[in-house]
Amino acid sequence: MTVRRVDWMALDEAEREAVLQRPTMALDATVRVAAARVIDQVRADGDAALRALTRRYDQVEIDAIQVAPDAFLAARQAVSDALYEALVAARDRIATYHRAGMAEGFDIETAPGVRCGRVIRPIGRVGLYVPAGSAPLPSTALMLGVPAMLAGCRDVVLCSPPRPDGGVDPAVLVAAQLCGIEKVFRVGGAQAIAAMAYGTGTVPRCDKLFGPGNAYVTAAKQAVAQDAGGAAIDMPAGPSEVLVIADSGADPEFVAADLLSQAEHGPDSQVLLLSDSVEILDAVTIELERQLATLPRAELAVQALSSSRLVRVRDLDQAFDISNRYAPEHLILALREPEGWLDRVQAAGSVFLGDFAPEALGDYNSGTNHVLPTGGAARAYSGVSVSSFQTTISVQSVSREGLRAIGPGAAEMARAERLVAHERAVTRRLARGDA
Amino acid sequence: MTVRRVDWMALDEAEREAVLQRPTMALDATVRVAAARVIDQVRADGDAALRALTRRYDQVEIDAIQVAPDAFLAARQAVSDALYEALVAARDRIATYHRAGMAEGFDIETAPGVRCGRVIRPIGRVGLYVPAGSAPLPSTALMLGVPAMLAGCRDVVLCSPPRPDGGVDPAVLVAAQLCGIEKVFRVGGAQAIAAMAYGTGTVPRCDKLFGPGNAYVTAAKQAVAQDAGGAAIDMPAGPSEVLVIADSGADPEFVAADLLSQAEHGPDSQVLLLSDSVEILDAVTIELERQLATLPRAELAVQALSSSRLVRVRDLDQAFDISNRYAPEHLILALREPEGWLDRVQAAGSVFLGDFAPEALGDYNSGTNHVLPTGGAARAYSGVSVSSFQTTISVQSVSREGLRAIGPGAAEMARAERLVAHERAVTRRLARGDA
Ligand SMILES: [Zn+2]
Ligand SMILES: [Zn+2]
Repeated sequence: MTVRRVDWMALDEAEREAVLQRPTMALDATVRVAAARVIDQVRADGDAALRALTRRYDQVEIDAIQVAPDAFLAARQAVSDALYEALVAARDRIATYHRAGMAEGFDIETAPGVRCGRVIRPIGRVGLYVPAGSAPLPSTALMLGVPAMLAGCRDVVLCSPPRPDGGVDPAVLVAAQLCGIEKVFRVGGAQAIAAMAYGTGTVPRCDKLFGPGNAYVTAAKQAVAQDAGGAAIDMPAGPSEVLVIADSGADPEFVAADLLSQAEHGPDSQVLLLSDSVEILDAVTIELERQLATLPRAELAVQALSSSRLVRVRDLDQAFDISNRYAPEHLILALREPEGWLDRVQAAGSVFLGDFAPEALGDYNSGTNHVLPTGGAARAYSGVSVSSFQTTISVQSVSREGLRAIGPGAAEMARAERLVAHERAVTRRLARGDA
Repeated sequence: MTVRRVDWMALDEAEREAVLQRPTMALDATVRVAAARVIDQVRADGDAALRALTRRYDQVEIDAIQVAPDAFLAARQAVSDALYEALVAARDRIATYHRAGMAEGFDIETAPGVRCGRVIRPIGRVGLYVPAGSAPLPSTALMLGVPAMLAGCRDVVLCSPPRPDGGVDPAVLVAAQLCGIEKVFRVGGAQAIAAMAYGTGTVPRCDKLFGPGNAYVTAAKQAVAQDAGGAAIDMPAGPSEVLVIADSGADPEFVAADLLSQAEHGPDSQVLLLSDSVEILDAVTIELERQLATLPRAELAVQALSSSRLVRVRDLDQAFDISNRYAPEHLILALREPEGWLDRVQAAGSVFLGDFAPEALGDYNSGTNHVLPTGGAARAYSGVSVSSFQTTISVQSVSREGLRAIGPGAAEMARAERLVAHERAVTRRLARGDA
């Protein structure tokens, strides 16, 4: 196993650009075509298409598409008490954090007699996708289910691929139930996205879709988001990634463990370490080898590490410039005074401060959300929050006095934009208001 | 001119669906292809492509693509004092409203020794598009420029098509300057979107693009938003629309004026009036004819009205059910007690309460934003606000004590998800923390 070492100061601009290049950026055209075909099939044949596609792609025969109420009871039995308690505690901590960040309405007077405000509404029906590729992801069910619950969405629908026995993973069902979700469907892939975006006999049509997934899921989400009759989506999805900035006092064992925990997410995961200390870069390289030796998913991690970089930088200031340019999903600051550097972070999904904040805590139970912008999207997108499950509506209430205050200005602007009917909608009222 | 009258109670489900159908939903494939070709050309040839495309589509020869500093001075001279004062007052009122709704960071303890917070950052570089089809739109420059300014974006870029004389409309330049925007480019259409998404020699590459536009602009925005190397966009755009709910006490002259002011936005604008009063529907029909007779843009309005409907409903409650299903961009409540009905509004862009709040005030100077979700997108999207120009970053700071509190739960969940490296990133630290 070799992780490439580079010296940022020795690189020209093109080489720097190459170091920060994500391994996979574009969806394959064949994936897009396949996803579009699945969407067409689900729109045409509804539940029958879901059964046929599940037979083909999951090699499972499903009769009832919706998970029955008694499956939730059985799931609770199948899950250990230790895991159940961990899920409950995580749910509560995620709820505490997400509640603290909830937006509030307001109502102010912008001119005498002109009251303008904002009201916040839950999105009516939301669809959550919880993948189950190499392993079940109950944590994702919590990360989507908790904010949906706090937002007060009228209908929360969850799709997750069936296991070989036809059931949805018990831990995922338990997590769903901990968020008050009752409508769970044993469907995965692009067919699940299509079902939630357009509705079938069984799966309700949703206004917005959330959650990570493989390339087919991502392609299907993009397709329905582009369709005016489709559904909105949370954000563009891509392979997971971490950028670690370590100073000379960082602990190589911890840094290596964090790089590996990111790498094990999949072969296309991206891992970057920036340090101004050659000793740390050397020590982390040795630690990576040592820790890899005992890691069960080592093949995956080795593949991910092959496109990763350990980068020597001039100083920490340069490290933050590079990080802001890369805009990582996860940013770990393995620094002695991490709080003091936070102001330098311009673009990132989630930031981990200090030696005792492994990214795994953000994945599971610190309270923050783990559905985060990847692929540089952190420059313009934020992680999932309660507001992802809400809309804001502006409201204006204007009295006769208010119209007299701002009506003439509006009429003046309407004239400049040559919108006479706009002008008259104001002046007809002004004429009456004066009467 | 005939506006179709329908009785909601007499319609079956398919007919109801047809009444609420938007006139144009999908972008033509030829528009998409043309926009994609323009994007390719701009990416390949940069500024030369901008000059060539402006020559072809705007029939204007532009040498300098960026508007020179002295053009702002000349623009101020070209704008009347009355319009200048209206723009300043509108800018101030928009700023007051938008400042009131700004999100704030927070920082809480989710477990002993686990601090989780959120910091808010401006998006670094944003691109604003201000169309200039049938008329200049200084109001759009304010609606995008004010929140960009409040967010504190490092770079704000504005593109607007050149007039026949090669200059950008003076009122647009004045509005830009009132928002502190110095980088204005005389480029329009899909080429402006491509330039801001990918950068040219002159136009800086932007992280997120905002603003309305014609079908080519919309198609270009969708294309760059789909490209992982492109830019984020504000929201899907479509023809403007209004839904009015009027009770028996509404003023037919005002209601008709509001319907016409919406209709004059363009031939594909959508106008719906819902009322439980046949007298009001009759009176509005007569008023529409009367007001149309003296309207300069009557042809446009007549075209828009041809796809519009005056709908008789059983009662106001049914009207709100229909409105929530339609999810209008603008919702006017021409009701005697409009505040009491606000709770019934589930999905809309902006709401206007009472007889003296014409939609024109929201377009110009009540303080709310006029860049709003159309085409039913209000079910899942919100209008532009300061947060549209910001990202939120979650931050966690964990002490040894904090890791002891939540580390075991995270390790338990990692085991359930078969992510051993995640588990070890926690347990290696726990082992040390105990030492
Ligand atoms: Zn992880
Ligand atoms: Zn308008």
